[in-house]
Amino acid sequence: MVISMKRIGKNVIKCEKGVSVISFASVVGDKEAKGPLGAYFDKSFSDPYLGEESFEKAESLMQKEALNLALSKGNLKGESVDMIFAGDLLNQCISSSFSARSIDAAYLGQYGACSTMAQTLIMGALAVDSGAADIAAAVTSSHFCTAERQFRLPLEYGGQRSPSAQWTATASGAVILGKSGKVKIKRLCPGKIIDLGVKDMANMGAAMAPAAANTLTEFFTDTKERPENYDAVFTGDLGTVGSELLCEIMKENGFNLAPNHRDCGVMIYDIKTQDVHAGGSGCGCSASVLCSYILKEMEKGNLKRVLFCATGALMSTTSSQQGESIPGICHLVELSL
Amino acid sequence: MVISMKRIGKNVIKCEKGVSVISFASVVGDKEAKGPLGAYFDKSFSDPYLGEESFEKAESLMQKEALNLALSKGNLKGESVDMIFAGDLLNQCISSSFSARSIDAAYLGQYGACSTMAQTLIMGALAVDSGAADIAAAVTSSHFCTAERQFRLPLEYGGQRSPSAQWTATASGAVILGKSGKVKIKRLCPGKIIDLGVKDMANMGAAMAPAAANTLTEFFTDTKERPENYDAVFTGDLGTVGSELLCEIMKENGFNLAPNHRDCGVMIYDIKTQDVHAGGSGCGCSASVLCSYILKEMEKGNLKRVLFCATGALMSTTSSQQGESIPGICHLVELSL
Repeated sequence: MVISMKRIGKNVIKCEKGVSVISFASVVGDKEAKGPLGAYFDKSFSDPYLGEESFEKAESLMQKEALNLALSKGNLKGESVDMIFAGDLLNQCISSSFSARSIDAAYLGQYGACSTMAQTLIMGALAVDSGAADIAAAVTSSHFCTAERQFRLPLEYGGQRSPSAQWTATASGAVILGKSGKVKIKRLCPGKIIDLGVKDMANMGAAMAPAAANTLTEFFTDTKERPENYDAVFTGDLGTVGSELLCEIMKENGFNLAPNHRDCGVMIYDIKTQDVHAGGSGCGCSASVLCSYILKEMEKGNLKRVLFCATGALMSTTSSQQGESIPGICHLVELSL
Repeated sequence: MVISMKRIGKNVIKCEKGVSVISFASVVGDKEAKGPLGAYFDKSFSDPYLGEESFEKAESLMQKEALNLALSKGNLKGESVDMIFAGDLLNQCISSSFSARSIDAAYLGQYGACSTMAQTLIMGALAVDSGAADIAAAVTSSHFCTAERQFRLPLEYGGQRSPSAQWTATASGAVILGKSGKVKIKRLCPGKIIDLGVKDMANMGAAMAPAAANTLTEFFTDTKERPENYDAVFTGDLGTVGSELLCEIMKENGFNLAPNHRDCGVMIYDIKTQDVHAGGSGCGCSASVLCSYILKEMEKGNLKRVLFCATGALMSTTSSQQGESIPGICHLVELSL
């Protein structure tokens, strides 16, 4: 039988042929460039407009920059890409569709809220491992100014933020997947929607932590792995509140996650000095941490085997205004040398 | 080499192992039930609220009904599904995420605007053919009342609609994909974004027709097929204006599409009497026509070989307010007995 992928247990998919990271790039805003990972990012913009007329056009340009940079780092042109998997937080995912407009490749828009980077990697890995694509791109972005005015309040209003709130990162990450490259995608665990009834839009960490715990527990159970088998288990973006909750739930589930756990939302800013409350969030947060620190440290050999688990909150302002709770999701990608 | 899928030319993907439609279902509103395809739909609701408190909750319930109905027609339970690919027009795709919340399966949100049904089928086919999933679900929906107030004007305003405007169908379609079933998915052609600069949000047909022409031309070129080799080439949803444009462009490209061309947006309503101007639109339009007329006529043997080409307009109200044009896309799925 010609099967390229194999299911392990109920939830895990193994890439049988092998999928590699050909190249990757990250582009961020000023605040992110001044954070602890500043030196790892490929490019930063101090102007939140990136010279464009609106924040939305700026976000789209930032995503395009990340994709073009990843392509050029891999010595590839846009037309070498067979399929682009991209998504973002904006209504109808316009950052992605307007960014991909100039590239001569099939476009498949993804929506996983802040879990989008892991979701696009899963889709890209599926396409490459199955032979549907020789080269696939996985891209996402977020922008503090577009997210604030769409999900919360006009920036000019200067609203107070609650201590559990997270700061949407102005950042984009792009990964080019193919058959050759040092870092490999080994196994995938696409997540299920978990909704325990959290309704507080200023506490996304609490809404997403149960989804992260569910995906990680299913992955560890199906593969018989343990957190300590990995150099690090990265989540993104639970922030400080969600991270603590995740480690608690995992302990109850029989896994000691805390020693190896790191959260992209906590890593991207200096929580104490950068006024971000519970940490970073937004599709671009975990995407830019993956496409800077994580993949660069893997290429250097300092990290050999990691889990990248991006989390998302699948609500909208409309659903929250109508009293609905926040459905959480977490998609997992296993990366190794 | 263990490759399950094969690329044909630059743009086409062939399912090597074979992907089948196990079952399908369509659920529609009152206007659609009273249209020419009324007898083909599985279920209809005369109350646009479906007994819920808001139109958004109603749309989500309609999508859930379609998925559950498709599962029960296939003698399957929710937990038999490995991966759900779903999407809709609402900001952050809430119809889909709230609908899939109750099902114990991995969820991967898709955004292709009105092309979403073809996009979810492509993703589902990729998952099943590669072995990543034994059973996958492809689901989408739209609702006239949620779309009008999100994209246009409050219903109470009673705005005049322009003659080229289309009517968002209140409809949902769900397809369950697996290894056994009469109708097979043979080849896929995920589309590229085509934007020729159309800016009129009341003329989506014109914005999407060039994308449909591009995908169809690439498919015919790569596979050496011709429109006349198919019992029908279904697009969705170009409406009357976009359909005429498509046939014109295809003629210029050397393909006589008109005799075999049918558009889901034109088929779902009686254009002359149902006051829908240029025809139907919305993710649920082509989805419900596929999951009623097309697949039922295929199962009866009256249609043996068809192309299903759903089209989408990847803009948002924000991008249009900022003067951007409308990026179009069209994804193609080849179905045969």
